[in-house]
Amino acid sequence: MSSVSPASVSDESGASPSRKDHILAAARICFSRSGFHRASMSEICAEAKMSPGALYRYYPSKDAIIEAIAEEERVAAGACLARLEGPGSIADRITDAAIAYLASACDPATGNLIVEICSESLRNTAVGERFRLIEDEAHGRIRRAVEEAQAKGEIAGDLDLDLALTLLLGIGDGLVMRLRLEPARPVETLRPYLHRMIASLLGAQPA
Amino acid sequence: MSSVSPASVSDESGASPSRKDHILAAARICFSRSGFHRASMSEICAEAKMSPGALYRYYPSKDAIIEAIAEEERVAAGACLARLEGPGSIADRITDAAIAYLASACDPATGNLIVEICSESLRNTAVGERFRLIEDEAHGRIRRAVEEAQAKGEIAGDLDLDLALTLLLGIGDGLVMRLRLEPARPVETLRPYLHRMIASLLGAQPA
Repeated sequence: MSSVSPASVSDESGASPSRKDHILAAARICFSRSGFHRASMSEICAEAKMSPGALYRYYPSKDAIIEAIAEEERVAAGACLARLEGPGSIADRITDAAIAYLASACDPATGNLIVEICSESLRNTAVGERFRLIEDEAHGRIRRAVEEAQAKGEIAGDLDLDLALTLLLGIGDGLVMRLRLEPARPVETLRPYLHRMIASLLGAQPA
Repeated sequence: MSSVSPASVSDESGASPSRKDHILAAARICFSRSGFHRASMSEICAEAKMSPGALYRYYPSKDAIIEAIAEEERVAAGACLARLEGPGSIADRITDAAIAYLASACDPATGNLIVEICSESLRNTAVGERFRLIEDEAHGRIRRAVEEAQAKGEIAGDLDLDLALTLLLGIGDGLVMRLRLEPARPVETLRPYLHRMIASLLGAQPA
């Protein structure tokens, strides 16, 4: 799953990126509140305080907006996953990526989007399918990082990678939701506990 | 969060429990498919293959059905939580309760209910509030079990209980969703990994 706060995505069309960002931020609020299916273009116009004519110049359909949000999610997820290639042990790097992901998913206005995305993924809708692609990329990159650590003997040789990935991704999804229910908790406080759970899951050798 | 497969709940009214179970099973399918708000009494009638007149004799409203499902969830969650009082270490008992919960939440026809319940909880609706009560009870019982283990010196004395509970409940919610996405994975295979993560989270002393 992936749900991160809006980030500026480079804009190839030359149209005003800040205007597009403004529309996407409004659309996230609407999707988070009403769901992908129930939210309408007129609701998004109202939230963005734009006329339909003005909004349609940037995005011709709700699908185009969802696609743009998915692309933002992909870019933002990629930024978190880049931490897998940083310095430190495999447990350090996965913890870093997880904390970055949790921090980026904690925007109170749009955090419910993660539940909408989960819901769509479970229902096998086209929207769900689009977000599954992002998830698949994250899954693949985490798996490769764990495989490399395993090949180097940094973690248990008999670790079942499929199971480990199920647990790692499950923890990520669950904590995003949990932090929505407990918005007062600073994400960073989870780090030491998350780190030792991940190290123990992977059977990481103490450095 | 709580979403478990239907269980026979003792029926104080004397009305046919199997007929009520049948209605509730149909309602779970509808809520799982359409959501609590969108699912209608006529959809539930169609799913249950009953006339409205027959169905309304058992449940006068959709709210009454939701309340009955919440009560089933409470009873079923209680059965999982009872494992916290069994034999074994605190990590053994929490793992047992978690596996029992995951196994009970894996009914493919109604498993999406967990996402609906999450969604309602995050939106602070009346339905969400009802399910939050069940969650609060689970939270309290797990917390007491961990506190007792801490008082006995079985786990780290400096464990932050609030953080530990956030992580334990987050893992539970996340794995329920993850197992929905990977329905071919037997729940039991998670046990050894889950056990070592929980033991390491709690700072459990090796027995």
